[in-house]
Amino acid sequence: MISPLAPKNGFPTLPEIKGVRFAALEAGVRYQGRKDVMLAELCPGSAVAGVFTRSATRAAPVLDCQEKIGGDASQGAAILVNSGNANAFTGAHGVASVKRITNAVAAATGVPETRIFTASTGVIGEVLPDDRITAKIADLTTALAADTIKDAADAIMTTDTFPKGCAAQTPSGVKIAGIAKGSGMVAPDMATMLVYIFTDAKIAQPLLQKLLSELTDRTFNAITVDSDTSTSDSLILAATGQSDAAEILEGSSDYDTFRVALHGVMRDLAHQVVKDGEGATKFVEIQVTGADSTADARRCAMAIANSPLVKTAVAGEDPNWGRIVMAIGKSGAKADRDLLSIRFGDVLVAEKGWVAESYSEDAGASYMKREEIVISVDLGLGAAQDTVWTCDFTKRYIEINADYRS
Amino acid sequence: MISPLAPKNGFPTLPEIKGVRFAALEAGVRYQGRKDVMLAELCPGSAVAGVFTRSATRAAPVLDCQEKIGGDASQGAAILVNSGNANAFTGAHGVASVKRITNAVAAATGVPETRIFTASTGVIGEVLPDDRITAKIADLTTALAADTIKDAADAIMTTDTFPKGCAAQTPSGVKIAGIAKGSGMVAPDMATMLVYIFTDAKIAQPLLQKLLSELTDRTFNAITVDSDTSTSDSLILAATGQSDAAEILEGSSDYDTFRVALHGVMRDLAHQVVKDGEGATKFVEIQVTGADSTADARRCAMAIANSPLVKTAVAGEDPNWGRIVMAIGKSGAKADRDLLSIRFGDVLVAEKGWVAESYSEDAGASYMKREEIVISVDLGLGAAQDTVWTCDFTKRYIEINADYRS
Repeated sequence: MISPLAPKNGFPTLPEIKGVRFAALEAGVRYQGRKDVMLAELCPGSAVAGVFTRSATRAAPVLDCQEKIGGDASQGAAILVNSGNANAFTGAHGVASVKRITNAVAAATGVPETRIFTASTGVIGEVLPDDRITAKIADLTTALAADTIKDAADAIMTTDTFPKGCAAQTPSGVKIAGIAKGSGMVAPDMATMLVYIFTDAKIAQPLLQKLLSELTDRTFNAITVDSDTSTSDSLILAATGQSDAAEILEGSSDYDTFRVALHGVMRDLAHQVVKDGEGATKFVEIQVTGADSTADARRCAMAIANSPLVKTAVAGEDPNWGRIVMAIGKSGAKADRDLLSIRFGDVLVAEKGWVAESYSEDAGASYMKREEIVISVDLGLGAAQDTVWTCDFTKRYIEINADYRS
Repeated sequence: MISPLAPKNGFPTLPEIKGVRFAALEAGVRYQGRKDVMLAELCPGSAVAGVFTRSATRAAPVLDCQEKIGGDASQGAAILVNSGNANAFTGAHGVASVKRITNAVAAATGVPETRIFTASTGVIGEVLPDDRITAKIADLTTALAADTIKDAADAIMTTDTFPKGCAAQTPSGVKIAGIAKGSGMVAPDMATMLVYIFTDAKIAQPLLQKLLSELTDRTFNAITVDSDTSTSDSLILAATGQSDAAEILEGSSDYDTFRVALHGVMRDLAHQVVKDGEGATKFVEIQVTGADSTADARRCAMAIANSPLVKTAVAGEDPNWGRIVMAIGKSGAKADRDLLSIRFGDVLVAEKGWVAESYSEDAGASYMKREEIVISVDLGLGAAQDTVWTCDFTKRYIEINADYRS
């Protein structure tokens, strides 16, 4: 069943990015009858930036990628991802699997092993049958083509109900195309968040990395489905430098427009992950303003976004602002009951420590029937703000996560 | 429907505590046809200690109580609690209601207002109809009796499915009797955690307060149902000094035995709150050992206890240790994938970064069918440890919190 929040027009048409080729095939790692392994090849000169899960129990491919980010761009790069098995919590076996896969990709593509990035997503704690993957690498290499990014988006899916893609172009003609998978912030059996974004921009790796880290905080780190964090979350941004546009330098107007375009792609992909949240029926934006600090704004927004009581109220279309007050109170952010105000969309719900005089339960209830809900809180203390996104919490989430045996 | 985890023998017989009298009546604050207001009167010389929610959006009665703890014991004390309305997020109205109630209780009992402690639990954001309460205070005062603590336990219930009580006696004859309400760590519409413990011990207020704060961290602060925190949680411990036993002094053997008895009562009441968790079908103990620090042990245990993925797995009787690894990883506690071990009861599940050789999925699945589950994690790093308690996360929780409109 496709999520009711999936893009109405399906997977978007993504532009070809000069210098990147894709291939995806059936390797039968776990799933049968569907593509489950993808290879992306990046031309020499490609800068590769990455951000990864902060989990203390990171999977072997994540640890391997983290070591390699920032290496020699002149030699090109390749990305290999499989779904069906996460190669997480597999001890020394996991490290050996990564080694065998990167070795095989290096042999087939001519890209040095230090520039081969891998990821695995799926079941945790089972040894990865890496022979099924390495057996397909020659075929993958032969199949590489510039126009098959949609196949790559399909191959990395696990419990996702739709493939996720987004593209943008800057005024100077720089192209960006990204794909993602994720359904639930994580369900370690079957899910994880993986994001691959490609651009033909000419940009130095340190600047690319800086941009990526900065924008991740406002996009992928600002979403939550169930407050859980995967052992495998990976986000890679690769710039091939094949665009005819000038090199992007910090502080230039090209930098600003590239930043805006990239931010848009990252935000859209992040929203798509939330919209494929397990059991989700509502997309919720939480805006916090008037906070004493940005950290407080994030803390407060995340406390609301992760509160089971708030999320079940949204699922029940209940304008239950008392639960918002509770979440603000427990967040640890500096707050004063008598200064804060709460809005559902444009409907002022509470202010000055009490329900707003203008508020009617009918107005609140009617607003909560929408598919996309904005909850805004002004703490009335300072100028700091933050926005995060989440989905509601339904019986279907429990069904997906409790009612089957892995 | 009474929780399947409720004590099989119903409400226990609680001893009378010399110096304390109770009364409970129907005031019709919100509920009809049941007791919803209770008064406890404490004799002169009673020491009163308290701990309260750390929420930044605390309700008016909580703020009032916090100011009064540690006052003059020679004048006695009184506790008045209503259910049905939380008098939370009610602005200046809330403060005025507390004032009118404490004033009326003072007039009727002769106890000064500075020694009247109140609490309100129920719906948030609605003005408390305090006239319905003050109208009953003369009747409550007349009805005061030593043997009616069960009525008090009934009167403070909201969404609770059973009244909660526990008692203990020390070798030197000091008696302790406590009552609690709470169902879900909080459901701000209708619930909150309130705990009142009475003892005839002779003990100075500062020592009583120290004991209470210390033991709260290992009992009521170590339980979680849904990670949410009420705006009204209150715990009061009153010692009347009427016991024939000697005064309890720090470092004495009487202190140790009193501490053990009080710890037992607090832990039992805390467990009863978890066992009345909304929709709960399993009681779960999470033990973390081998942590680098006590704070890390708590962080790790709470990350497991609050993880929706772990809690839904328990509901589904799924021995999904991958989700435990995930929760440890995201907790922020120092952890090393290759040093940690995980057990379900006595069943060793994972060690050395991988599933244990001796582990069978059948053994895990069979263990998870129990009503009381112990999950233990050894981080293999240091000597610090902690234990917390939670319940599973079922569709019934979503039903209770989403499928009705407040």
